[in-house]
Amino acid sequence: MSEAIAPAGGFTPPITGPDALSAEILTIGDELLSGESADTNSQFLDGRLERWGYMVRRHTTVADDLSAIAEAFRELSARADLVISSGGLGPTEDDLTLAALGQALGVELLLDEPTLERIRARFQSFGRPMTPNNERQARVPARGEVLPNAVGTAPGFRAELGRAQIYLVPGVPREMRWFADEVIGPRVDRGRPVLVRRTLKVMGVGESKLEHDITDIVKAHGDVRFGYRTLGLENHVKLAAVDGAALARAEAAVRERLGAQIYGVEGDVLETSVVQALIARGLSVAVAESCTGGLVQKRITDVAGASGCFFGGVVAYANEVKTRALGVPAELIALHGAVSEEVACAMAAGVRAAMGASFGVSTTGVAGPGGGTPQKPVGLVYVGLSGPAGTTAERLMVPGDREQIRSFSASFAIDRIRRALG
Amino acid sequence: MSEAIAPAGGFTPPITGPDALSAEILTIGDELLSGESADTNSQFLDGRLERWGYMVRRHTTVADDLSAIAEAFRELSARADLVISSGGLGPTEDDLTLAALGQALGVELLLDEPTLERIRARFQSFGRPMTPNNERQARVPARGEVLPNAVGTAPGFRAELGRAQIYLVPGVPREMRWFADEVIGPRVDRGRPVLVRRTLKVMGVGESKLEHDITDIVKAHGDVRFGYRTLGLENHVKLAAVDGAALARAEAAVRERLGAQIYGVEGDVLETSVVQALIARGLSVAVAESCTGGLVQKRITDVAGASGCFFGGVVAYANEVKTRALGVPAELIALHGAVSEEVACAMAAGVRAAMGASFGVSTTGVAGPGGGTPQKPVGLVYVGLSGPAGTTAERLMVPGDREQIRSFSASFAIDRIRRALG
Repeated sequence: MSEAIAPAGGFTPPITGPDALSAEILTIGDELLSGESADTNSQFLDGRLERWGYMVRRHTTVADDLSAIAEAFRELSARADLVISSGGLGPTEDDLTLAALGQALGVELLLDEPTLERIRARFQSFGRPMTPNNERQARVPARGEVLPNAVGTAPGFRAELGRAQIYLVPGVPREMRWFADEVIGPRVDRGRPVLVRRTLKVMGVGESKLEHDITDIVKAHGDVRFGYRTLGLENHVKLAAVDGAALARAEAAVRERLGAQIYGVEGDVLETSVVQALIARGLSVAVAESCTGGLVQKRITDVAGASGCFFGGVVAYANEVKTRALGVPAELIALHGAVSEEVACAMAAGVRAAMGASFGVSTTGVAGPGGGTPQKPVGLVYVGLSGPAGTTAERLMVPGDREQIRSFSASFAIDRIRRALG
Repeated sequence: MSEAIAPAGGFTPPITGPDALSAEILTIGDELLSGESADTNSQFLDGRLERWGYMVRRHTTVADDLSAIAEAFRELSARADLVISSGGLGPTEDDLTLAALGQALGVELLLDEPTLERIRARFQSFGRPMTPNNERQARVPARGEVLPNAVGTAPGFRAELGRAQIYLVPGVPREMRWFADEVIGPRVDRGRPVLVRRTLKVMGVGESKLEHDITDIVKAHGDVRFGYRTLGLENHVKLAAVDGAALARAEAAVRERLGAQIYGVEGDVLETSVVQALIARGLSVAVAESCTGGLVQKRITDVAGASGCFFGGVVAYANEVKTRALGVPAELIALHGAVSEEVACAMAAGVRAAMGASFGVSTTGVAGPGGGTPQKPVGLVYVGLSGPAGTTAERLMVPGDREQIRSFSASFAIDRIRRALG
């Protein structure tokens, strides 16, 4: 169970490729500072920059404000070898990035005829008239290089300032990605990624215990950075190294220590692993949910091809549904309460029988915010599992709010199937 | 405004309140610079800061690096009235925010006994031993104020530096949100938002039609900014103004035009509106899901108190489950196929009868990526509704991938209940 004690992620000590250059990303737009939009361009560019051999040192976001953008260009170009800015290259009055770069470079803006011609041709090809404000996009700093845009109207731009190469790309994600992969990458790729990485995904161990359990391995592999990330019930151990062989040695040591607590690596999802394992063994699972209300089945059927191991299940929110659809004796509920080990077991066995599945899994608990009692507080959840080896329920006390209680419980239920498969 | 021709969201022209103070946000974590995670905390804090009367001028993201964090604290506190940092307060070696703030303040770290005691008590309450590394979280700068964390382990912290008030909160989004609303807001809220805003949430009208339908209202209210945002099947009309009375006039005009197509305002969620409407009228709903696999019921039971109108339902993924648990005649499936108007109707009527509910709603479709045929392509979905007025199914062709097809279908199913309530 993760106490969500720590913020997600992080590595120590920092390791940098011996000759990594530094990069910074600047994103520009009022909508990125008003709560309307989150900046997702930076995340994309981070991945590319690392692959190209750059350490990303900082992200900065500023508004559509001439002096704020110009000041940011001056700051970033004094620190970084490579600066990529996204946004503010469009045709409207609040698109000020080219003007701000001109100010930072100390040069005028000039109308670039070839660019204007390309913009005009683009409008023509869509059969639309070019409104005059589109001319703005062709007014570029007198020092630097226009980077034509093959997938949109606003051109990119490249200039040198301070120690930095500066690339300006549009903020539209599709165009930004095109510029990264087709224009910037080919020019700046150093052919040696800063780091090689591996993420090991662990279920059922808290972050601080996990870190504690592998402390000696971390110490013994000083050439590998270890990081931890908590995501619901999962904890991810993240390894990064300059040297691939060093990474492989550290991974092997962690795998030997943690064994089956590791369910997968980067890109793997718990329910996908479980669905694939069930199908590979010709087994199936049925689900009876009370407090999770459909979430376990939703997650199983998120996996394309889940029909190979999942035929159906029941959301038994009310007690009468537990009795009628799952055969949980009403007396059992009256005696122990709906949130009890006994009822969790009866639900799991009931749905397994009803669906004719290899396994039945169940959840019953108090998701809150109301409904808690001193004996059965909010966060108390039983997860039942019925299979060839018998029927048992495990008791959880999940911290957090309704969403977290339901989410953790669903993860625990899916993981019970995984553990049953051995 | 970016150069996207119609970016999601966005407003024009910019409007600023007359006497706003400035704020900056600092997010800290290697994972925010490596391509692993996008920073979403800043977006949340932007919205809060605007409401509290602050203009957010800049976002900065730095790695888990002592001197980079300390330098950022010095920079931001020289420019802004209020600085909020998130991340780097956890128990592991790479959590360096408190140490960096100490460095920026020029003071030592001291072990804060009350904080250590709270952390110890939190571990005890979950019946787990506290590993020694958790002590790190109680080592705080000698100048400033510890802000106890009621929803997690890592404490927050407040200090003064330069012209700024600095607040440090954990990076875990749930804890960050709690600190914003329960700790920071009550202390810094100036009681006069930079802008007043209103979001009107609309179901069942496309974005361009929506914009077209209210063009004259937009023109008639020049003192109000209008923006649009598409979210799945929903479209949101976003109003913002300096003057609350101007906003109210514009809202009234839009409401008169769009009527019941508006299901709620900011903070409202479709399923919450539906659950509340059902409960208010003493009605109930049962759900039978095939292609959505539990998602409809998951969303209904996301709403606290859903048990007042939802007793349960069935995930009928396989045909035999449709027949056995819902009474859909096997011949009907053989004749029309599982993805058909007839089967959707039989599922809705079947689950309504089985659960004794006022309404039954159902989904059956081809969510993909496999399983499509020329007659029944990926994206074809039938949504059934059975109620006092009879049983019908509506046919959808949903674009996009498996996730989008399932998500749109679930929204459509929940909206069918809303529409049935009139």
